[in-house]
Amino acid sequence: MVFPMNDSSCIKVGIVTVSDRASRGEYEDRGGPAVVQYLSEVLASPWEPVLRLISDDRQLIEDCLIELVDRERCSLVVTTGGTGPAERDVTPEATAAVCERLLPGFGEEMRRVSLQYVPTAILSRQLAGTRGQSLIINLPGSPKSISQCLDGIFAAIPYCLDLLGAPRIETNSDRIVAFRPKSSS
Amino acid sequence: MVFPMNDSSCIKVGIVTVSDRASRGEYEDRGGPAVVQYLSEVLASPWEPVLRLISDDRQLIEDCLIELVDRERCSLVVTTGGTGPAERDVTPEATAAVCERLLPGFGEEMRRVSLQYVPTAILSRQLAGTRGQSLIINLPGSPKSISQCLDGIFAAIPYCLDLLGAPRIETNSDRIVAFRPKSSS
Amino acid sequence: MVFPMNDSSCIKVGIVTVSDRASRGEYEDRGGPAVVQYLSEVLASPWEPVLRLISDDRQLIEDCLIELVDRERCSLVVTTGGTGPAERDVTPEATAAVCERLLPGFGEEMRRVSLQYVPTAILSRQLAGTRGQSLIINLPGSPKSISQCLDGIFAAIPYCLDLLGAPRIETNSDRIVAFRPKSSS
Repeated sequence: MVFPMNDSSCIKVGIVTVSDRASRGEYEDRGGPAVVQYLSEVLASPWEPVLRLISDDRQLIEDCLIELVDRERCSLVVTTGGTGPAERDVTPEATAAVCERLLPGFGEEMRRVSLQYVPTAILSRQLAGTRGQSLIINLPGSPKSISQCLDGIFAAIPYCLDLLGAPRIETNSDRIVAFRPKSSS
Repeated sequence: MVFPMNDSSCIKVGIVTVSDRASRGEYEDRGGPAVVQYLSEVLASPWEPVLRLISDDRQLIEDCLIELVDRERCSLVVTTGGTGPAERDVTPEATAAVCERLLPGFGEEMRRVSLQYVPTAILSRQLAGTRGQSLIINLPGSPKSISQCLDGIFAAIPYCLDLLGAPRIETNSDRIVAFRPKSSS
Repeated sequence: MVFPMNDSSCIKVGIVTVSDRASRGEYEDRGGPAVVQYLSEVLASPWEPVLRLISDDRQLIEDCLIELVDRERCSLVVTTGGTGPAERDVTPEATAAVCERLLPGFGEEMRRVSLQYVPTAILSRQLAGTRGQSLIINLPGSPKSISQCLDGIFAAIPYCLDLLGAPRIETNSDRIVAFRPKSSS
């Protein structure tokens, strides 16, 4: 894991844990660290995490996503938690509100992948979208599901960031083979 | 099938047949009875059906869904019919209008399951969403498709109702094994 | 390929290439011809193509789709290009704006099919919907992906057009077996 601060080719990744209980300290945040661990294993190019831990409050989530994209200049922002059907789950609403366009294929594929493990995967409302040159992706809360979902979609993320004009990222090809169409490489 | 009227752990299930012709008596409603039959076989806990038969009129459908959720206190409401691309098919529009949040995984999975039987499954616009503590699900009109769709999603319904704060339901595990994550049981 | 002009059972198919560079003549349009080639092989009933080549401009795309449906009376309109996540990709937005209803199953299935070939298929925002009695479908830009996507969905198109009140079309059954439920044939 490399965290150079002033390298223009280093991408910043916002990692937002959304959880009432974790944000009150009632239990340890396990989602955020699971995302950091995953990215440490998968990314081969320099990156810097920007971590946040907030409650399931729609306005807070929106403000946090906007801050990470517009001020912190994170090229990739992933949330963990708050995507279920319960009343307090508002991460997808907040994400949709700050995104300029949604990419429905991410949510579809993450549900399809998760469905191979648990039938309740269809309850997840997780989505992805873009704001400016940044990609925002909702992940589930559980570390195991986070890993399963990211395995299902990560090969498409480097090229997506290319298309958005974000810095180029590379992956460890023994974990994830990033796909870039020939015409774009 | 058990229909106790004043048991707090008995859930009410709204079953709405949406069909111009069936509502005019031009042919027999086969969708509604197919849903009743399915639930009779699958539900192991007490439940009470609340049956409706209405025409493909968006306002009527909206009023009916609101009545079943807000007044009748149905924890689960399923519609049958009116989800295709034809002009008179307006069940998804009515459903989206009365739901507070949509659960896209239900529609995706029902189409994916139906697609194993007929290629025209992609034409279905069926969706699901929540209103208050109730789950509303659009099913197709044909009895066979109803059964195929419910088989594909039913394992997730009990936990979804748990998350919404509805009464706990149990299934006959020889038909459907309801999935509840360990942390929530 | 048969292009009779005044046959009431002949359907018109709008084929819209959306590409800044092709519309400026910087390279040859390969998407439009690929769609024409595909339909020539698959359609067994008379049809007439109405071709357009425009830039990735949302207003232009909307105007073009409206012209093809409302004035040219195309029963089927397919676009190629402009469905990715990049800033200039606006075909889905234009399509959604002119459609009265969306048919999410088309986009889901085209992404699922494409995903068997490239992991970046999840980045496509392609959708389909109806305007009046016409079906509008977004296809990707590459000829190979166009063919893969159409193979995945074409069996459902004839019945969809039936439901919309468009002229009946037939397919070459060695390429695509059009599915029409028994009750509707």
